[in-house]
Amino acid sequence: MNTRILFVKRPTGWADPSCFALESCPEPVIGPQDVLVQALYLSTDPYLRGRMNEGPSYAPGFALNKPVVSRVVGRVIASQNAKFAVGDHVWGFLDWAQRVAVPRGEGLYRIDASLGRVSLAVSALGMPGLTAWVGAIELGMPAPGDTVYISSAAGAVGQLAGQFAKRAGARVVGSAGSDDKVAYVLERCGFDAAFNYKTTDLDAALREHCPKGIDVYFDNVGGSTLEAALRHANVAARFPVCGMISAYNEVGDRGIRGLQAVLSKRITMTGFIIYDHIHKLPAYLARVAPWFRSGEMVFHEDIVQGIENAPAALIGMMQGEAIGKRLVQVAPE
Amino acid sequence: MNTRILFVKRPTGWADPSCFALESCPEPVIGPQDVLVQALYLSTDPYLRGRMNEGPSYAPGFALNKPVVSRVVGRVIASQNAKFAVGDHVWGFLDWAQRVAVPRGEGLYRIDASLGRVSLAVSALGMPGLTAWVGAIELGMPAPGDTVYISSAAGAVGQLAGQFAKRAGARVVGSAGSDDKVAYVLERCGFDAAFNYKTTDLDAALREHCPKGIDVYFDNVGGSTLEAALRHANVAARFPVCGMISAYNEVGDRGIRGLQAVLSKRITMTGFIIYDHIHKLPAYLARVAPWFRSGEMVFHEDIVQGIENAPAALIGMMQGEAIGKRLVQVAPE
Repeated sequence: MNTRILFVKRPTGWADPSCFALESCPEPVIGPQDVLVQALYLSTDPYLRGRMNEGPSYAPGFALNKPVVSRVVGRVIASQNAKFAVGDHVWGFLDWAQRVAVPRGEGLYRIDASLGRVSLAVSALGMPGLTAWVGAIELGMPAPGDTVYISSAAGAVGQLAGQFAKRAGARVVGSAGSDDKVAYVLERCGFDAAFNYKTTDLDAALREHCPKGIDVYFDNVGGSTLEAALRHANVAARFPVCGMISAYNEVGDRGIRGLQAVLSKRITMTGFIIYDHIHKLPAYLARVAPWFRSGEMVFHEDIVQGIENAPAALIGMMQGEAIGKRLVQVAPE
Repeated sequence: MNTRILFVKRPTGWADPSCFALESCPEPVIGPQDVLVQALYLSTDPYLRGRMNEGPSYAPGFALNKPVVSRVVGRVIASQNAKFAVGDHVWGFLDWAQRVAVPRGEGLYRIDASLGRVSLAVSALGMPGLTAWVGAIELGMPAPGDTVYISSAAGAVGQLAGQFAKRAGARVVGSAGSDDKVAYVLERCGFDAAFNYKTTDLDAALREHCPKGIDVYFDNVGGSTLEAALRHANVAARFPVCGMISAYNEVGDRGIRGLQAVLSKRITMTGFIIYDHIHKLPAYLARVAPWFRSGEMVFHEDIVQGIENAPAALIGMMQGEAIGKRLVQVAPE
């Protein structure tokens, strides 16, 4: 028998375990042109909270009583499609299930295992990595000596954004929600400074760690952190907006105060979604994969074992308990 | 005797007449290299409210018991400076006074009277005009068929922004605070649609007049208008932020709600201040002055007579009573 995770209830505020159900279901069967994939890793991502809402966010909402869908890394275990061979590593937006039939192999991408470990295809060597690159480098445009401030600094995107900005010669400052995360970005990712936003006054921390002000704010969270960044921004600062996770689980919208700084400081705030940039992925991989292989850049994965633990893993990630990319391992590589 | 307008009290909320004082003062005298200017027109501008505050906005705050300063168009009536001859028309950031001595002529610019009427040097053929151009064209990047929504549409900047966007082939929609202003932008400036935001529901009006959504929002006001524009924006919309006048006179800051649209719709919001673009003024003038001379573009000035009426003219402009550019005429041309 196969096992899958259904989405069964729309959350109000934070998602909780009652929003999901574990279900046994028949093994999938494949027909002509189809591909059968054994899931290895399920990706948990902040944007999934938006998909749990009724209305459309930038991705369509999940249907009730249907499987959760996210990026999944898997291995082809049967194929009637000439483009995919048994043993190929692939990723795609797939149902959260142990095994999935992919009609005509559509939306399935082969992973070049020579680039690095296959799990990275949904993180550092995939769209989260490209997200960090586009935000930190293309939109942030950090010059040597610029101060780049990154919220959710220990997250999948944040830790990469910081390392990219550091390679560009910037002073990189991060905030995260635990002392362990702060230690991780300082000791492993080479951030110049970092602080625990839960135990530190934001203004005091930004005054201390960004003494020359903020030139680039890589926004993963919105809310009061964005407000503080507006207060400490320099003239002509760039604010790539990658996420506003502080708002995703909020009921109501308390508004962003101090937005007049956009005018008085000539700030450019740019929301971006990586699907608009996906054509850059091959060039990105060619450039950055060697940095991970050589160890010049690091990437931390927080791996939870067992598909039955996927709902709790996702909920916990949204509540900030993971360092780096949280994956659910469904089967051994 | 000379007459000048002093700034004597910092307002809380709206400026009122008690913030200003009319004062008789000695006629200015000029020394070597100095220039004596007879004021013709005092420019009233929304950004002056920011200068009445203690802290710095993007321009330094006014000193108490010193003259109000803004752009002034004048005529040279005495000169000990080879760069300026008696009879020259000039503009500069000058004290609000009938006659002003300008040490070494610094900060004084000669007006090319062949371009158009001299008063336009502080509006359509000066920085407000360049502001409209940079916001509507350079940052807004309207493509033919795009919908451009402009708040404060009958203001000095708004009416030009709309006409520039219209020339670029866009559908141009404006909002203003009186039926007279709405009629002006519809009948004189060629806007495709306009509405009185004081008597119309914003969402209903934007649904009606921007049926394909908003591609460019030229923000002059911030506040609830910005929030509505975020709700009606299309993917990849551009939001040049030129002013947030709704906040200037507010005590406190109620915050901007729905800013998550910046992310979900990949909006680029860019604050800009025309001083960063001033090098473009000659090219701008060469391009647009002919459009005003030929009558292809129009520009409405609301001229109040007499320096003694300058405070009331400024206060009234901030409260929205002027159509187009409000000037105070100090002396006949």
